[in-house]
Amino acid sequence: MERIYVDNSATTAVSEKAFSAMLPYFREKFGNPSAIHSYGQEAKKALEDSRNTVAKAIGAYNNEIYFTSGGTESNNWAINGVCQLKKDKGKHIISSAVEHSAVLRTLEKLELRGYSITLLKTDKNGGISPEQLQNAIREDTILVSIMMANNVVGTLMPVKELCDTAHKHGVLFHTDAVQAITHIPIDVHYLGIDLLSMSAHKLHGPKGVGALFIRLPLHLPPYHTGGGQEKGLRSGTENVPGAAGMAVAVEEGVTALPAVTNSITSLRDKLIENILKIPGAYLTGDPVERLPGLASFVFENIESALLINELNEAGICASPGSACSASAKEGPHVLSAMGYDDDIARSALRISLSAYNTEQEMNYIIDKLPPMVAELRKNRLY
Amino acid sequence: MERIYVDNSATTAVSEKAFSAMLPYFREKFGNPSAIHSYGQEAKKALEDSRNTVAKAIGAYNNEIYFTSGGTESNNWAINGVCQLKKDKGKHIISSAVEHSAVLRTLEKLELRGYSITLLKTDKNGGISPEQLQNAIREDTILVSIMMANNVVGTLMPVKELCDTAHKHGVLFHTDAVQAITHIPIDVHYLGIDLLSMSAHKLHGPKGVGALFIRLPLHLPPYHTGGGQEKGLRSGTENVPGAAGMAVAVEEGVTALPAVTNSITSLRDKLIENILKIPGAYLTGDPVERLPGLASFVFENIESALLINELNEAGICASPGSACSASAKEGPHVLSAMGYDDDIARSALRISLSAYNTEQEMNYIIDKLPPMVAELRKNRLY
Repeated sequence: MERIYVDNSATTAVSEKAFSAMLPYFREKFGNPSAIHSYGQEAKKALEDSRNTVAKAIGAYNNEIYFTSGGTESNNWAINGVCQLKKDKGKHIISSAVEHSAVLRTLEKLELRGYSITLLKTDKNGGISPEQLQNAIREDTILVSIMMANNVVGTLMPVKELCDTAHKHGVLFHTDAVQAITHIPIDVHYLGIDLLSMSAHKLHGPKGVGALFIRLPLHLPPYHTGGGQEKGLRSGTENVPGAAGMAVAVEEGVTALPAVTNSITSLRDKLIENILKIPGAYLTGDPVERLPGLASFVFENIESALLINELNEAGICASPGSACSASAKEGPHVLSAMGYDDDIARSALRISLSAYNTEQEMNYIIDKLPPMVAELRKNRLY
Repeated sequence: MERIYVDNSATTAVSEKAFSAMLPYFREKFGNPSAIHSYGQEAKKALEDSRNTVAKAIGAYNNEIYFTSGGTESNNWAINGVCQLKKDKGKHIISSAVEHSAVLRTLEKLELRGYSITLLKTDKNGGISPEQLQNAIREDTILVSIMMANNVVGTLMPVKELCDTAHKHGVLFHTDAVQAITHIPIDVHYLGIDLLSMSAHKLHGPKGVGALFIRLPLHLPPYHTGGGQEKGLRSGTENVPGAAGMAVAVEEGVTALPAVTNSITSLRDKLIENILKIPGAYLTGDPVERLPGLASFVFENIESALLINELNEAGICASPGSACSASAKEGPHVLSAMGYDDDIARSALRISLSAYNTEQEMNYIIDKLPPMVAELRKNRLY
C-alpha cells in the first residue's frame, strides 16, 4: 500500500537536492573543518558556504548563525544563555503556554532554580496579543520567548509586534521558528528578533542539525565547551554534511515559498472545508493567521490515539499534535492552554502538509476520514 | 594528485557500509521515532537496533546507551551531569592535564563556579599511574575523568586500574573513549567504567552523532530539556540516520579490530622506525602502550605549522596534534603537560592511520619527510 505522509510538522523527508548536497561530505570531502590541510579546508569552506546560505535565507549576517544539533538544542541554548548573560538584571522570563516542550521544560527547570516564569495564556485561536505581553513585563524581565508558529494548531504569532513590545522595555526577544522557517517569510532584522531557533529536519533537511541566530552584537555564553568551534560558542566537530543539507533545504524552501504557499494553502483549505462537514468536527487554531500547510481539528466523542491508528491502517500517517508528546503520553498542553477541556483536547488530529503532498492524497483523506470517525463513535457507544 | 589522508584521529571517512546503512533514513524511512504511525515505528526500530549494536560493541546493556550529537556533548553531559548529581557530596574533580579540550574547558568553567579541579600531570610518556590518582582523591572528590587514549600522542591510560582506584573511594569514573573505541577492545562492565564518551566520526561513522554510556543504575540529570527523547535525558528529535551509521561503523570497527590492529601497528612501526632516523626526531607518547594507528613525533628546530603545510603541498594530510586546537591557535597543551618545553612542543607531528591506509602511502611519507625536515631547518638558519 502506498502511504500518505501528512505529518510534516513532526519531520519531513530530506529533499533530493539537500540529500545530494550532503553526500560528498561523508566519504570524499570528509575532512575536519578545524584541520589546516586540504581536507580540512574544503570542509571548512562547505561549512561557511552553508552558514552564508542559511543567513541569507532569514536576512541575517553570516556571523549571526551558529550551527547546533537541532531545534531543541537551539532553544535550550538561547534560553539558558540569556539567563547567564542577564543574571545581574533579573530572573523573570515571559513565554506562552503553547510553546514546544523544548521551551516549556527548559523554563520549568529554571523555575526550580529560582526563576520566575510567566506563561501567557492564549485566546481561543492560540494567539497572544502585544497588550498581554505589555502587561506581563516587569522590571526584572530578562527574556521574552514566544514561538513564531504553533506546532499543534499552526497559529502564527504577531512576532514583530511582540518583539517591538519587548524591546520597548529593553527586554531580549527569542522565537522558536522551527515550524515557521520556509513556511512563512522571515527577515530577522526587519522583525527585530534577537534570537531565533531553527531545525533542519522540519524543512526537508536532515535530522541532527539546526541553527541558532544570535543578533550581533549580542554575545551569548558558550553552550558546549571544548575545541572552540563556532567561534568558541558551540564546541564539537561541526556536522558538515548536516550543515550542507540544511543550507540547501532552507534555500530551496525559501525560494519555493510563494508558489508552495499557494498550492498547499489550497490543499489545506480543501481539507478544512470537507473535514468540517463531519458533525462535531471543529477547526483548532486561528482560521486565518495559520501555517499554510497545517490543518488541525478536534472531534466530539473521539480518542486521538484510536483515530491515528485507524488512519495509519488506511495508510494515512498523521498525528494528534506534537510528535514529541505523542509517545511521551504528555497531555495535549497546547489545546488545554487554549481553553479546550480535556475530553475534546484528547481528540486532536493534525494534518501537516509539505510540497510533496497532492490533491489526490487530500481526496483520499476526505474520503476515508468521515466513515472512520462515524465508526469510532459507533464503537464508543457500546 | 592523489592525497594521502593520515589525520584519522581528527576525523575519518564514513565507511561504505556505514554510509549505506544511513541512506534509507533520509528520504524513505524518514519518520520521527516519536510518531505513532508506521513511519514513526520504522524509525524507532532503526534507532533501537542501532542502540543495541552500539551497546553490544562495548559490552553494555542497550538501556545504558544514550545518543548525543558527538563526543564533546557526551563529555559536557557526563561531567556537568555528575556535578549536579553529586552536589551534596562535594566539589572536587580529578582529571589529567592531557585531556581533550572538551573535558579541560568544561572543568575550567566549573572552576569558575567554585569547583576544585586537580589535573594530574603525566610522566614523560603521557601516562598516569593509579598511585597518582590514589594520592589525589579527597573526601569531597565526586568524579575522576581520565581519557582512555590520548588524541595527540596516542598513549593508552591504565583505565581499569584507575577506575578501580576511584571506586575504592566511592568515586565515579568517566572516560573519554573517543580515540579508543574500535582501536582497542573495550568492555565497560569488565573495566568497571561508570560513564564513557563516544563519537561516530572518529571511527568511520558520520559527524554530528555520538553516544554516552551511563552505567545502570546511575541516573544522570537530563542534558537538553524538551520532548523527552532518550528516556527523558536527551530531548530533541533523534538523529536516526546518524545513529544507524554510527552503529554500523562501531560494529564494523570492533569486528575488524584484531586484524586491523595487526596491519596498522605494522604500518605505524614502519613509520616510527624510519622517521626516528631523521636527526633530532623523537617519538612522543608511550613507545609500547599506545594506539595501534598513531605515530607522533617532535623535531628539533622545526615549526609544526610549516611542516604540516609542506606535507600538505606534497599531498600528505597530517596534523600537529588535536585538530580542535590546530586552528584555535591553542598551545600544544598535551606536550607541555608531558614536560616538553615550548619550542619542541611546537614541532609536533601526528600521523594517525586507519584501515584504509596502505604500505605504499607509508613509503611515500618516509620518502618525503626527511628532505622536507632538512629543507625547513636550512631555511630556518637564514
